Amino acid sequence: MLPFKTLLKIDKSNPEAVFKQLASQLVLLIQKGTLMPDMQLPSTRLLAADLGLHRKTIMAAYNDLITEDWIISKERKEYRVSTLLPIIKPRSYADKAKSSYKAKSAVSFDKLEYVPSLTKISANYKVIVNDGFPDVSIFPIERVSAEYRRLLTLQHLKTASASLNIDGCPVFKDALSIFLNDTRGLNIEPDNLMVTRGAQMAIYIAASMIIKPGDKVLVTTPSYFLADAVFRQLGAELITIPMDDDGADVDAIAEALQYNKVKLLYIIPHHHHPTTVTLSSPRRTRLLEIINAHQLTVIEDDYDYDFQYQYSPYLPLASGAHGGNVIYIGSLTKVLGPNFRIGYMISTPDFLRSAIKLKTLIDMRGDVLMEEIIASLMQSGEFSRFIMKANKLYRHRCNYAANLLTNELAHLVEFKKPQGGMALWLKFNEKYQLAHIIKKSAGLGLQFTGRGYFKGKDLTYDAIRFGFAAMNEQEIEFAVDILKKITR
Amino acid sequence: MLPFKTLLKIDKSNPEAVFKQLASQLVLLIQKGTLMPDMQLPSTRLLAADLGLHRKTIMAAYNDLITEDWIISKERKEYRVSTLLPIIKPRSYADKAKSSYKAKSAVSFDKLEYVPSLTKISANYKVIVNDGFPDVSIFPIERVSAEYRRLLTLQHLKTASASLNIDGCPVFKDALSIFLNDTRGLNIEPDNLMVTRGAQMAIYIAASMIIKPGDKVLVTTPSYFLADAVFRQLGAELITIPMDDDGADVDAIAEALQYNKVKLLYIIPHHHHPTTVTLSSPRRTRLLEIINAHQLTVIEDDYDYDFQYQYSPYLPLASGAHGGNVIYIGSLTKVLGPNFRIGYMISTPDFLRSAIKLKTLIDMRGDVLMEEIIASLMQSGEFSRFIMKANKLYRHRCNYAANLLTNELAHLVEFKKPQGGMALWLKFNEKYQLAHIIKKSAGLGLQFTGRGYFKGKDLTYDAIRFGFAAMNEQEIEFAVDILKKITR
Repeated sequence: MLPFKTLLKIDKSNPEAVFKQLASQLVLLIQKGTLMPDMQLPSTRLLAADLGLHRKTIMAAYNDLITEDWIISKERKEYRVSTLLPIIKPRSYADKAKSSYKAKSAVSFDKLEYVPSLTKISANYKVIVNDGFPDVSIFPIERVSAEYRRLLTLQHLKTASASLNIDGCPVFKDALSIFLNDTRGLNIEPDNLMVTRGAQMAIYIAASMIIKPGDKVLVTTPSYFLADAVFRQLGAELITIPMDDDGADVDAIAEALQYNKVKLLYIIPHHHHPTTVTLSSPRRTRLLEIINAHQLTVIEDDYDYDFQYQYSPYLPLASGAHGGNVIYIGSLTKVLGPNFRIGYMISTPDFLRSAIKLKTLIDMRGDVLMEEIIASLMQSGEFSRFIMKANKLYRHRCNYAANLLTNELAHLVEFKKPQGGMALWLKFNEKYQLAHIIKKSAGLGLQFTGRGYFKGKDLTYDAIRFGFAAMNEQEIEFAVDILKKITR
Repeated sequence: MLPFKTLLKIDKSNPEAVFKQLASQLVLLIQKGTLMPDMQLPSTRLLAADLGLHRKTIMAAYNDLITEDWIISKERKEYRVSTLLPIIKPRSYADKAKSSYKAKSAVSFDKLEYVPSLTKISANYKVIVNDGFPDVSIFPIERVSAEYRRLLTLQHLKTASASLNIDGCPVFKDALSIFLNDTRGLNIEPDNLMVTRGAQMAIYIAASMIIKPGDKVLVTTPSYFLADAVFRQLGAELITIPMDDDGADVDAIAEALQYNKVKLLYIIPHHHHPTTVTLSSPRRTRLLEIINAHQLTVIEDDYDYDFQYQYSPYLPLASGAHGGNVIYIGSLTKVLGPNFRIGYMISTPDFLRSAIKLKTLIDMRGDVLMEEIIASLMQSGEFSRFIMKANKLYRHRCNYAANLLTNELAHLVEFKKPQGGMALWLKFNEKYQLAHIIKKSAGLGLQFTGRGYFKGKDLTYDAIRFGFAAMNEQEIEFAVDILKKITR
């Protein structure tokens, strides 16, 4: 007989019933081939004695496995592994196939050279500086857990699975459109709204619908690198618009429109990524004039609107009179943290009808449960309270980081405190090399996970986003200390 | 004073603390503009009396709101709505913008005419016949709930959000590659695997990497309509391969390769969608020869492999010797139900490196929590047990539906019982019009949610997929009764 006492490990602290644990482990032994088809199993009495369990426990496990066709019994006395198992390791092709996926691909494919590989993050850090993500420590975890418990019922799953809403759950679309109207001065209905997996998918879908190879797209320099990569991937030619402390140079946009047939302008008016600059009010007014005069198609990426640290915030271009030319894209990932990716696209119903078709080809349904959970938090007012709480905390951290960096690292970095958002844009003194500093910091337990921006064609300095939102005071101090130490 | 007794609705059966409910509802009133900036709030004593609550409850709510900057207090006596509220309805652009998103879009965009609009499902049904989805009633809901509880801790969310795995959570990729090797005779490592949102995203990504406008793609006729739509959207020319009871006509594939520069073959060898036919063993062998001889790039869509009702199942092409030409795509959505979309793509590491780049542009991270939950169920053996249980149930339902349809509806439909999967492919007698039958059935409470396939260029008959897996015996009987009634 096999040494079942060693093979079967029952954990009495595990909330799962012992007989279920036992059954599952027998299945694993069958799948691994330790228990082969037609092999006889020990009697319930014998196995009970061997494992120090009650005989009824063994019988319950065996009965489960008989019901599921893993084992068969003769008159409930002799138990054998079924000879008719579809889920045991099939081997017929396996040896021949050993190397089919080992070599370089035989397929001819697009290498996507425009897209940077995002590096996996190592676990050997003391403190992370991300490029602008929320602090999941303030995530309303108990409420969300309670909502999962409420929604994870068979009846609810059944209802949810019987409906297909590629554009998002109706209850969430209703709540989200009210939330967006209330916070952003928009005036939309749910049919102006499509839910996506994060702003990235919305950018990808909108751009794919608009851009044909060779089309010219206006982007700021620098700009959000993953949006640039989408446009390039679609074959666009990028025309760059300079940035200054008031945001994108709107006169340069007007000029570019004089000399080029421009298909699209991509712009981030609030807390621009990466530079954190907010487009000034006069420039917003001027840009709306340009949009109307030229019927210029615009993707307004407003990923960070909910985090504004000055009262009387600017409103998005989308809430202005833009004649339907502005496709407005936002994200809840900056509220919920990166574990839950939910974004949205706002446009006219006819544009969205086609956008929904493209989404069908890419992703069908979204995260149904999380959409319903957020709808519930929005309806109760908790969502807004959570954002308010986060704003208060991040505003404090923004000030704390800004003061410390100004006082301790003036020799190394220069920055302008942003009006909102989750990051500072640190421009490095040319005496220091950012690549070297990132590497050295990592060795001392300080990991920058954002992208480094280096002096070159588009930039006259090295720079990186210093995401303060997820760092507490001690962590900010730690980061500043390390940077001070390695540049002393 | 405002009628707070009417405005504020406290639900004592709600698990949330009363003071928290109160605070959230006050926030809603502020956001709606019922409570305006600088408006004085009732004293704690007055409001307590008005609402029949303890004064300390009111104070706790007010204190929360003070901390969050919604209200301010003068010496804890007078309470007023803050004048510095960023989250109150901003109105500056709102009136001007009233119609910006109402009219037809000003933007010039791709209408995606190849892609059918999937209709939303109405709630006025007694019984649904889907086109082949699992029964969520057998979903292991308690285990999954317990796993959500285990994973929804701040520490875990923090760790998860600090790592970025565009290709899927490492623990899930490990478990999934073992599962796929065990069940499908594959021989892959985790770096042969990228996790996606459902098979659809994997098809979209693989096709986007391979197809350039004008490229020729071989597809069966009929074929999975959302894969066809992806290829067309990418500008491919489709060359159709006929189907018979042994699956795709492999000789026709060989012939098409003689006369065309073919970029890609898309094939569903198991329980073909929509026809449910499984590619025969001799044709699989022959197809592998053709793939090797022509270095033919193949997308093998194996969405339904886990559901096979005959022992000694066929293995996928991907487990054969295909020289890396086969990109293998599968889905867990057919196991988990449509609420949780998880799919995967298997190929060589260099192909996947570029696929991960394209996924970065579309969707970044997947459903981190669900990936970890499934990893845990796979490791404990519960995932395989669940599939076994589902197979047993669906095999029974397949037989039940097949018998009933044969006995009661021979005048109306013709079909071949499939070797696995979740649907029957019902070909309609030409005396009856499917469109009419679908409409009439819906009026009687029987809703077909799958796509109707109609006689025309590609088909010599009307047909629809009859998804039996999610229907119990009574529901199958109901469906057959209705169909009988309207065709008598």
